[in-house]
Amino acid sequence: MELKVYVHRLSQPARAVLLFCKMAGIQFEEVFIDLTMKQQKTPEFLEINPLGQVPAISHADFNLFESHAILIYLASAFPGIADHWYPSDLLKRAKIHSVLDWHHSNLRRSTAAYVMNSALAPVIGLPLNPQAAAKFDKLLCASLSTIDSVWLRESGPFLFGADLPSIADLSLVCEIMELEVLDEEDKNRILGPHKKVKQWIKDTKQVTLPHFDEVHNVLFKTKARFQKQRSMSAATLQSKM
Amino acid sequence: MELKVYVHRLSQPARAVLLFCKMAGIQFEEVFIDLTMKQQKTPEFLEINPLGQVPAISHADFNLFESHAILIYLASAFPGIADHWYPSDLLKRAKIHSVLDWHHSNLRRSTAAYVMNSALAPVIGLPLNPQAAAKFDKLLCASLSTIDSVWLRESGPFLFGADLPSIADLSLVCEIMELEVLDEEDKNRILGPHKKVKQWIKDTKQVTLPHFDEVHNVLFKTKARFQKQRSMSAATLQSKM
Repeated sequence: MELKVYVHRLSQPARAVLLFCKMAGIQFEEVFIDLTMKQQKTPEFLEINPLGQVPAISHADFNLFESHAILIYLASAFPGIADHWYPSDLLKRAKIHSVLDWHHSNLRRSTAAYVMNSALAPVIGLPLNPQAAAKFDKLLCASLSTIDSVWLRESGPFLFGADLPSIADLSLVCEIMELEVLDEEDKNRILGPHKKVKQWIKDTKQVTLPHFDEVHNVLFKTKARFQKQRSMSAATLQSKM
Repeated sequence: MELKVYVHRLSQPARAVLLFCKMAGIQFEEVFIDLTMKQQKTPEFLEINPLGQVPAISHADFNLFESHAILIYLASAFPGIADHWYPSDLLKRAKIHSVLDWHHSNLRRSTAAYVMNSALAPVIGLPLNPQAAAKFDKLLCASLSTIDSVWLRESGPFLFGADLPSIADLSLVCEIMELEVLDEEDKNRILGPHKKVKQWIKDTKQVTLPHFDEVHNVLFKTKARFQKQRSMSAATLQSKM
């Protein structure tokens, strides 16, 4: 197949690219890059993406990496993609670039770092780091407040008051979904105050089903595994008291 | 004037936007936002940019923030802008998006944080933080290596081997220019190993003169003030020995 999409589904930006391809009806071959086996650092993969990260794509002879660049390219290069994903209107498009830029140093940075330091680190053999988690907790909560008060301030279910989602809705919502692996109480503490954000996640999920659930399935499984581990730890602790 | 560009010239992304407007011959009014007086947090400015940051623009009734989104918008909305700044060719454009995305979490994050923690903090009443500086020093050096080996790997003076600069060259070079406020020895330690990067900075400067120097003038003055302070501190120290 002409378009290859290199992903590991535990990567948030990789999930956003997959979800977009499925929603836009783009034909592609999904190539699994096993991050736990460091396949993203093999000479073969570094030929595709010298930065050694997923997602990446190769489209005929053209290699591209960085998820937002990929989303924009796919929405522009394939025929018949619905305009709402990456509007041709200059002003709408500019706003989408604006929130995608903001995302990097705010929501993306804080979610990835918070989840890693407060839950995921042991999976890759690192200790949890409560001090780092606390720092990124603050940035994460501030980022969610900004989504609420700035990016979702116009009426309408999606970013900038749009009636239908854009690539930016997919990117940001796939990022926030990472909070699923947290302890349920912690996730609710973080998302609880942001009713508008919660409704927007629900709306984005709703219009992208069944692909949304299919793409996030591995995350839901990870969540279930973590919950089981937590229950077992709690039971062990209780039996020792 | 129809286009207003809100800046403080000590902001790297603000300088990139100014430099692009001047190079592209876009007519605009420069509106000074005094960050030292927290003018970016006034209700009037928050109407323009609710994130309270520079740069921002207002073009007739349209407000926009985030420097990369602004650069793309300006290159697209104004007539007669030379194609090399933001090529209409899909593949070239995709590569530019790719490096602009990479920039946020790598060069931008490391340069801003390194310079703040190792030199600028006292200017805004904060102490220097050698531990944080060391952390971002590592990311900064890695980012420069990536520019060298990935973004400048094709022959040709500019990013992706282009003959003429794009908005990405301006954004990245304006960021690196921030290193000018460092102690000369430290700056040379950081940039020294990256000959290709140094040549690219020189080439970008060369093709954007005299605007490049004019836009960076306030930075050069800050550099001179810092050098004088360092010399005086050294002399005081010597007189006490």
